[in-house]
Amino acid sequence: MVRAQLGSLAAQSSSARQTVAPQPVGQHRVVIVGGGFGGLYAAQSLKHVPVQVTLVDRRNFHLFQPLLYQVATGWLSPANIASTLRAVLRRQKNAAVLLAEVTDINPVGKRIIYRGGDLSYDSLIVATGSTHHYFGHDEWEKFAPGLKSIEDATEMRRRIFNAFETAERAITTPEEVQAWLTFVIVGGGPTGVELAGALADIAKRTLTHDFRRIDPATARILLLEAAPRILTAYPEELSRKAQKFLEDLGITVRAGTAVTDVRDGEVAVKQGERAEVISAQTVLWAAGVQASALGKALARSAGAVLDRSGRVAVQRDFSLESHPEIFVIGDLAAYAPAGEKPLPGLAPAAQQAGRYVARVIESRLAGKTPPQFRYRDRGSMAIVGRATAIADLRGFHLAGFIAWLAWLFVHLMQIVEFENRVLVLIQWGWFYFRRSRAARLITGKSNG
Amino acid sequence: MVRAQLGSLAAQSSSARQTVAPQPVGQHRVVIVGGGFGGLYAAQSLKHVPVQVTLVDRRNFHLFQPLLYQVATGWLSPANIASTLRAVLRRQKNAAVLLAEVTDINPVGKRIIYRGGDLSYDSLIVATGSTHHYFGHDEWEKFAPGLKSIEDATEMRRRIFNAFETAERAITTPEEVQAWLTFVIVGGGPTGVELAGALADIAKRTLTHDFRRIDPATARILLLEAAPRILTAYPEELSRKAQKFLEDLGITVRAGTAVTDVRDGEVAVKQGERAEVISAQTVLWAAGVQASALGKALARSAGAVLDRSGRVAVQRDFSLESHPEIFVIGDLAAYAPAGEKPLPGLAPAAQQAGRYVARVIESRLAGKTPPQFRYRDRGSMAIVGRATAIADLRGFHLAGFIAWLAWLFVHLMQIVEFENRVLVLIQWGWFYFRRSRAARLITGKSNG
Repeated sequence: MVRAQLGSLAAQSSSARQTVAPQPVGQHRVVIVGGGFGGLYAAQSLKHVPVQVTLVDRRNFHLFQPLLYQVATGWLSPANIASTLRAVLRRQKNAAVLLAEVTDINPVGKRIIYRGGDLSYDSLIVATGSTHHYFGHDEWEKFAPGLKSIEDATEMRRRIFNAFETAERAITTPEEVQAWLTFVIVGGGPTGVELAGALADIAKRTLTHDFRRIDPATARILLLEAAPRILTAYPEELSRKAQKFLEDLGITVRAGTAVTDVRDGEVAVKQGERAEVISAQTVLWAAGVQASALGKALARSAGAVLDRSGRVAVQRDFSLESHPEIFVIGDLAAYAPAGEKPLPGLAPAAQQAGRYVARVIESRLAGKTPPQFRYRDRGSMAIVGRATAIADLRGFHLAGFIAWLAWLFVHLMQIVEFENRVLVLIQWGWFYFRRSRAARLITGKSNG
Repeated sequence: MVRAQLGSLAAQSSSARQTVAPQPVGQHRVVIVGGGFGGLYAAQSLKHVPVQVTLVDRRNFHLFQPLLYQVATGWLSPANIASTLRAVLRRQKNAAVLLAEVTDINPVGKRIIYRGGDLSYDSLIVATGSTHHYFGHDEWEKFAPGLKSIEDATEMRRRIFNAFETAERAITTPEEVQAWLTFVIVGGGPTGVELAGALADIAKRTLTHDFRRIDPATARILLLEAAPRILTAYPEELSRKAQKFLEDLGITVRAGTAVTDVRDGEVAVKQGERAEVISAQTVLWAAGVQASALGKALARSAGAVLDRSGRVAVQRDFSLESHPEIFVIGDLAAYAPAGEKPLPGLAPAAQQAGRYVARVIESRLAGKTPPQFRYRDRGSMAIVGRATAIADLRGFHLAGFIAWLAWLFVHLMQIVEFENRVLVLIQWGWFYFRRSRAARLITGKSNG
């Protein structure tokens, strides 16, 4: 009974509700799992297509992930980078939102299974992205939180600011103080680099004058990267410049350094043959990324092929070979057609895939041949400390202040809701001119 | 060893730190416990007094409590109403902040005890406020969260918005839907009235067009008050007007109704002789208030006298009779000198007491007679739904839109940090003109 009702979630209007006109039952049902860049753009692109769209997510908001590190470092509030999915889609009459955690997919019965019910589809778009992982060492997570969700970000924020508080309060030996003032960031990709730069700014600028016994500026910040250089996705020249920028901020960048163990208050590393143990009370994880577990569900039930990181191999139109009515987009998809560069795991790539898949569904319903997908590479950028960034714009390289301005503009314009855009802009301005980090609350677990 | 070091927390500068000049050891040490309205204002008022101030709080921020209900209803973000204590006091050279939870007071040894250490004082100001309580039924808290902390507010927010989501998703019977769309608020004081009004606004305005199967406007909102009328601290005329405003918003106000039990999905009430059980999945607690546990510590160790709600009886200068060097201010103090009206539990009263106690300490150090405390009653106000308020300004009564404008102005001006003031103003404006509640995130516990 639950199933029957929910199967027509978007089609029915409840008897108590007068404002939404009932839609024709029997219309093509598109179910989208995941309200990130891929899923949300797919839903919006289906606005004028005669289908019923149901967007399913376990969270009630779309998260602007590129700014998550700014929440983790007390600059923005969670709500500034989150837009409730219902608010974004409220005017889209053919779309419904379902807050539910999808646990499995039944491609034969054409149903998704979630905790408490299931939902039928004619076309399915899976866009559940990726999560951080610990290379088989899940026990490290306790000591080295990653950064994928709002809760991750407020937990990181709690740990960062609590470390300074503990150093000020609980001093017994200078070694203990040093361990509380040592921050290790594992992973030299964009997230790791951004976190390291923000931490340096916190220690050297935000907290000046705030403490009486410790000097926050003496904090040690280490950025560890297993590969021979940081920012491996960028050209070597930009990666070198980024490292220089970070070192100018006092950050110790250690490329070619692999983490072998993370324990309470310690990180064990290996650089070449040299093993070493670093005393650090705060370890932030910005290393491994693993595709969402729904990839495995698709492999099991729909015969999908997974790559090494658990991503689902898709065809040129993002559908599964075995089930052309199932599409996979975003970070969960391994899109690498023969003779082409693999699609990168970036927000614009997910957005373009979302828009494209909507067009494929529209074409199929109209009996037309869908167009070819063409990725428009608009480049990629990363923040490297305050007022500094690097940008790789299709071979055109920028580094420093200009790149930072470009970063600001591009990211500000991409934030979904106008209200958030204004609030973020104000907080950035304040931050820039007054070194303010208003959102540095220690919340959540007790600091006992 | 920890003790000796921390006893001179404000006096010493660590060897690594050059920016703060060392203060003369042996200066009068003022320890303030609690960074709310009373404690923070006391600390700031001691700025030019030759004392060492240490402000101790278990949280790293001052919370602007009057706006907490706006966080609970998704209008403001936690950081908008919180100011980090260190940021507020960073320029005050004679003040240090200690993030620690005080568990006991030793008036003989003149020390406060916190988890992990203790701290000596010459004068002590205790300003740890109050917490909600359940009239001996702590088991109700699980089903009916109160509203005192940021975590309380985000938990309330989660429950409110999750209730609508669950109604949309998990329908099996109309009764179940109705229970998810029923909100019971226990307590008709300002917080209860403000929550009720905000809930009506969420149901009738914010969520319009957001759902497809349920109509949020059909939500039932019940405000229960055991006393014969709501807002008993206000004149009867204003209380009657407030009830009328609430009823115009569709809220059921039930005065003279006592809660006898709160269970999972149910509230048992008694109105006169009539007992009744209300099915409601969301119950919000805005009833009992109990003084902080440090009152009991003072009773045990310093012979302080407590009133029925656990507040500490203080003398005309807010000190204890048995220990004139210990002051108690704010919601923890029962200030009722013979022949005078008791001091109300309001933010302005706590602020004035904080400022006054600073002057008492200054006078004593200078060997002068302290001035008399005179409470300047600036009146009190409460929001009653959107763009409506009531205000009792020393016998001058306002109700409706004008009172609301006065409320906005007064509260905006009292927010400690200018940045927060601007951000709050923008969000209020947006809310007013666009019915937006940008911060309606469901975060924290899983919604499984």
